[in-house]
Amino acid sequence: MPDRLDVAVLGATGSVGQRFVQLLADHPWFRLAELVGSERSAGKRYSDVCDWRISARPPESVLNLPVKHYEEPLQSPIVFSALPGGVAGPIEEALARDGKKVFTNARDHRMDPDVPLLIPEVNPDHARAIEVQRQQRGWREGFIVANPNCSTIHLVLALKPLHDAFGITHGIVTTLQAASGAGYPGVPSLDLIDNVIPFIGGEEEKIERETRKLLGQWDGAKFIDAEVTLSAHCNRVPVRDGHLETVSVKFARHATPSDVAEVLASFRAQPQELGLPTAPKQPVVVLDLPDRPQPVLDRDIEGGMASVVGRIRPCSVLDVRFVVLGHNTIRGAAGASVLNAELFYRQGLL
Amino acid sequence: MPDRLDVAVLGATGSVGQRFVQLLADHPWFRLAELVGSERSAGKRYSDVCDWRISARPPESVLNLPVKHYEEPLQSPIVFSALPGGVAGPIEEALARDGKKVFTNARDHRMDPDVPLLIPEVNPDHARAIEVQRQQRGWREGFIVANPNCSTIHLVLALKPLHDAFGITHGIVTTLQAASGAGYPGVPSLDLIDNVIPFIGGEEEKIERETRKLLGQWDGAKFIDAEVTLSAHCNRVPVRDGHLETVSVKFARHATPSDVAEVLASFRAQPQELGLPTAPKQPVVVLDLPDRPQPVLDRDIEGGMASVVGRIRPCSVLDVRFVVLGHNTIRGAAGASVLNAELFYRQGLL
Amino acid sequence: MPDRLDVAVLGATGSVGQRFVQLLADHPWFRLAELVGSERSAGKRYSDVCDWRISARPPESVLNLPVKHYEEPLQSPIVFSALPGGVAGPIEEALARDGKKVFTNARDHRMDPDVPLLIPEVNPDHARAIEVQRQQRGWREGFIVANPNCSTIHLVLALKPLHDAFGITHGIVTTLQAASGAGYPGVPSLDLIDNVIPFIGGEEEKIERETRKLLGQWDGAKFIDAEVTLSAHCNRVPVRDGHLETVSVKFARHATPSDVAEVLASFRAQPQELGLPTAPKQPVVVLDLPDRPQPVLDRDIEGGMASVVGRIRPCSVLDVRFVVLGHNTIRGAAGASVLNAELFYRQGLL
Amino acid sequence: MPDRLDVAVLGATGSVGQRFVQLLADHPWFRLAELVGSERSAGKRYSDVCDWRISARPPESVLNLPVKHYEEPLQSPIVFSALPGGVAGPIEEALARDGKKVFTNARDHRMDPDVPLLIPEVNPDHARAIEVQRQQRGWREGFIVANPNCSTIHLVLALKPLHDAFGITHGIVTTLQAASGAGYPGVPSLDLIDNVIPFIGGEEEKIERETRKLLGQWDGAKFIDAEVTLSAHCNRVPVRDGHLETVSVKFARHATPSDVAEVLASFRAQPQELGLPTAPKQPVVVLDLPDRPQPVLDRDIEGGMASVVGRIRPCSVLDVRFVVLGHNTIRGAAGASVLNAELFYRQGLL
Repeated sequence: MPDRLDVAVLGATGSVGQRFVQLLADHPWFRLAELVGSERSAGKRYSDVCDWRISARPPESVLNLPVKHYEEPLQSPIVFSALPGGVAGPIEEALARDGKKVFTNARDHRMDPDVPLLIPEVNPDHARAIEVQRQQRGWREGFIVANPNCSTIHLVLALKPLHDAFGITHGIVTTLQAASGAGYPGVPSLDLIDNVIPFIGGEEEKIERETRKLLGQWDGAKFIDAEVTLSAHCNRVPVRDGHLETVSVKFARHATPSDVAEVLASFRAQPQELGLPTAPKQPVVVLDLPDRPQPVLDRDIEGGMASVVGRIRPCSVLDVRFVVLGHNTIRGAAGASVLNAELFYRQGLL
Repeated sequence: MPDRLDVAVLGATGSVGQRFVQLLADHPWFRLAELVGSERSAGKRYSDVCDWRISARPPESVLNLPVKHYEEPLQSPIVFSALPGGVAGPIEEALARDGKKVFTNARDHRMDPDVPLLIPEVNPDHARAIEVQRQQRGWREGFIVANPNCSTIHLVLALKPLHDAFGITHGIVTTLQAASGAGYPGVPSLDLIDNVIPFIGGEEEKIERETRKLLGQWDGAKFIDAEVTLSAHCNRVPVRDGHLETVSVKFARHATPSDVAEVLASFRAQPQELGLPTAPKQPVVVLDLPDRPQPVLDRDIEGGMASVVGRIRPCSVLDVRFVVLGHNTIRGAAGASVLNAELFYRQGLL
Repeated sequence: MPDRLDVAVLGATGSVGQRFVQLLADHPWFRLAELVGSERSAGKRYSDVCDWRISARPPESVLNLPVKHYEEPLQSPIVFSALPGGVAGPIEEALARDGKKVFTNARDHRMDPDVPLLIPEVNPDHARAIEVQRQQRGWREGFIVANPNCSTIHLVLALKPLHDAFGITHGIVTTLQAASGAGYPGVPSLDLIDNVIPFIGGEEEKIERETRKLLGQWDGAKFIDAEVTLSAHCNRVPVRDGHLETVSVKFARHATPSDVAEVLASFRAQPQELGLPTAPKQPVVVLDLPDRPQPVLDRDIEGGMASVVGRIRPCSVLDVRFVVLGHNTIRGAAGASVLNAELFYRQGLL
Repeated sequence: MPDRLDVAVLGATGSVGQRFVQLLADHPWFRLAELVGSERSAGKRYSDVCDWRISARPPESVLNLPVKHYEEPLQSPIVFSALPGGVAGPIEEALARDGKKVFTNARDHRMDPDVPLLIPEVNPDHARAIEVQRQQRGWREGFIVANPNCSTIHLVLALKPLHDAFGITHGIVTTLQAASGAGYPGVPSLDLIDNVIPFIGGEEEKIERETRKLLGQWDGAKFIDAEVTLSAHCNRVPVRDGHLETVSVKFARHATPSDVAEVLASFRAQPQELGLPTAPKQPVVVLDLPDRPQPVLDRDIEGGMASVVGRIRPCSVLDVRFVVLGHNTIRGAAGASVLNAELFYRQGLL
């Protein structure tokens, strides 16, 4: 793999950082060249400081990579950010100002009026917002592109083809979210043994707001939100990986459950057409078994890059209801940004 | 406790049966006189055949009670039924025909047009339907009174005062239901380790249908369903006891979240006024902490007989949303029927 | 309850601190007068700063108690310490020097050569070591008395009567310890969903060492360790409360499993004879069911103050093997120190 | 893959049967030709009757295979049995009498005096016992070869090189076993939410007895048990896959923990030398991290075919103690029999 582009991962030792490392370790277009961590880790070998929690051991190729400190200069032109919200914002801006192409999973810049909040299957044309972003911010080469919140991504992957086909006006969603969504150490075990928590700080607002931006338009100068009203109830459940969401939606145009199933199952978009390496063959996989999808069985479908939908049936209050499941740290986080970078690569934007 | 009425429990060795035994072991008005079980148990001591799973040991007073077979005649005038749905129907009918006053947790007769589906705080006047029931069926003394499904009870305890105050027209509810709701052995552990199941057979229909009957009227001859349209999504989660439900509702009249909180917190009804022994002081307890109610912390409030509501906030799609939690085998099952019997006792119907 | 002695609880907002508050809230001999917490809590009402996790709400009587800071002077003559190990040592010494009678759950002073490591059923005469402690340290009224580690207590409650009857020489024990043993937040949920951890820092050494002190003698000047060699394997499992331990022991004298059962079941000691309020009627409860004890069913036997033993059978390598279970934050921590204080009260040492 | 031998799987829809199907679906030497199930499944497509629980879907190649009934004749010369103990015995005998080469995971014939209880790394020469088996039973071509119990296999993989090097005389082992070891539906979720079960019927005896046969000799006419005395304590814990065992052992010859680590890490045997396709590169993987192995992180090392050992340290009662972990349905069941068959294939015995 000769001509790969060098990439760096910020926050490489955390939960999402580990997923970035896993997905980039043998990437055909990107070479995982630099890992960046906190003060505690800086200067040491990745395998010595990373409490790797995805499997028994990190990929061979990264074991000996040194971990850099945030203040050290990076040579890679492309940076993936798994930094925690709040911390991420200024660091990512400094890097972009310095010419880096930043693909971030952090929440900080998602709603910025000039930052694309991108899902390649959903709103690939939003990528063009980086031109305005560069202009307005006076950046020459660098930019920031964000992926949405883990719950939003899987919801919107399912909503997008329905919105195009039938026009979604309203939706009510309840999430049953996995522990890994809160990182590590994250949620204390005493909160999730024989228990669920009906609250995740800021999550409901993110789902409601990000969805409107994702389904909306980039008019060349600004984002115009979609007229889609959502109401979200977020819960944490004792599951390792895989967010499950129950969804009821109202359409502008008539649609039966079987219309919905057909539209979802036949959905294909740019990543599939372009053959992006991390793209799932089907962005939305429809299961027609009565009790699926389930996290432990279905979160790894399409390598964790698809959203899995089941139980499509009429809703007596809105129009149709269904269940959607997706892997929260693969398609819901690291895989989302990797796919964003692949889209940019193919479009010649890197 | 001299003048207590003798009662029998059908299905006394199962999950709900054990809760009946626990609640009736020292009841001031009822004397737990007879336990009825399956062929396997009949003729043996309760402590020898019951795999008691509520605590270390069954109450002292029942350890030596013999378990009778379903075909043996019962001397108790009052019968509590924890029989499984499907099996329960004909057995309960035979007992009522034979003069027994049957309070059942089984689903079989809940929607019968002459059977009260009763929650004493919600529709105590439905009790009068037993007169028509007796007439139509030719029963002299016996009758059947049912309590609703475990998820329905806690939902409707919260909806009732809101319906009276503001008129509920629509609601969308997602349940996160405990394993004990499926009895024992019930759900296999491989289904609930690192997993949730987005399906419980028949449950969504029960919630939607029973709620309309419960919030409806008994006009002296028949039940008239309430015009309340619900849509339910039911899930099983790795929790022992305590069903949690996220709820969005639409009102006919304007109501703010604080109106809702006030109406719920001040709700009192017949069981409270009559001082029924098993009645909670407050049928609905409102918590105003950001991340409550939670099953492991809050399911035992008011001895498991209250519904606990939290996170009352506006819903952008309907009007108001909140979380409700309740103990599914106490107020959601055995305690519900015991309270029904207490209401009948106080009204001189036993 | 007029003549109760005032007591303070250090670390009152943590897991063990909450158990102290629960056990002392309505104590017949002690009045919970002062709660001490960290800087974050100091100056506020207990109910405002304590994230109470035992049940829905703290006891009524403590809701409005103010939380003091460690540097504020205490007026209570008796202090219960739920401080974390490492932090506890110097604070407890300063209090004892200042005349306070300190009963601590912390590990810091447990192995001090003049500090009684006390289980009232096991080594009540070790209490006399406080005379030497005062002399050597120049303390007039104050002293420090420690209770053992949570796993050690339940193990030694079972070993003590066997040691007296048959002389234990060797033992191998494997623990399956509950999450609450690590406090809150404690163990991350990602470590205990679909997982167990075969390591708890320092725990194996504590079990091996504390047992020798507990089963040993106080000769009036120093402790003489018992000649009991233990080997411990410690594991964390996804259980809220209740440490379970598998035990194989070798005796100096012949003993059959039924000898062992009889000795354990008939074990009574000073706390039972003196009728200490927190003492269990039976320190060791023997169950003869094939698959018991189990944490969720049996940890609350005797209010969580007993050790529960089952599966007593021959061991082909040592002599006898069995399972012991106990509540780790009641008898294994707060309840242990409360019982120690009750013993001192009855012996006129307070 | 042209010249593959046809194989059948008995009990193909159960937990272990599914692992057989997974491991055989693309096997280089064996062609999965026939699936056999219960009456309920017979005559239907595998994908229609199998409640596949390993991942989202069964391998493509088996989806359309028809499920046969036990009484239908099989054409495959090789049969893998995942039948439940008790049921398996007579069916397997009838097949062997009929000329089938039966590799079984069931317990029924494990301790038969002429049936090899085989782990290819441990006692490959026991395979020769099938000659006596055929003679004594009058079978011409067929035979039965058993793999040990899931807990025994991983224990003995770790004990074998130590026994060869230092001579094991005694061992005490406590298991923390995964739910999948009991099959599906298996253990009820109410038994494993906030709980562990200190009992697994027959398991302790199996570990103690099978180990003596495995480490013993085949003298050409009979098996001579090894003089190794074990004592086992078996527990079920809330883990999906992966049995963890704490082990203390006594050696005939002196050995330090580092001797033990070296012997385990350098262990290689026939399967590795012969390059059997399912064989792990290292039968025993030694981790030297303080808190490993852990089920969720380490059970899939070497594709679930290795035993993973950690925490090797001195034992004050016996000589050395350590933790061993292994995948119970791969190397502990289906993978064990597949490896046995591969050994036979390579030795020209098929």
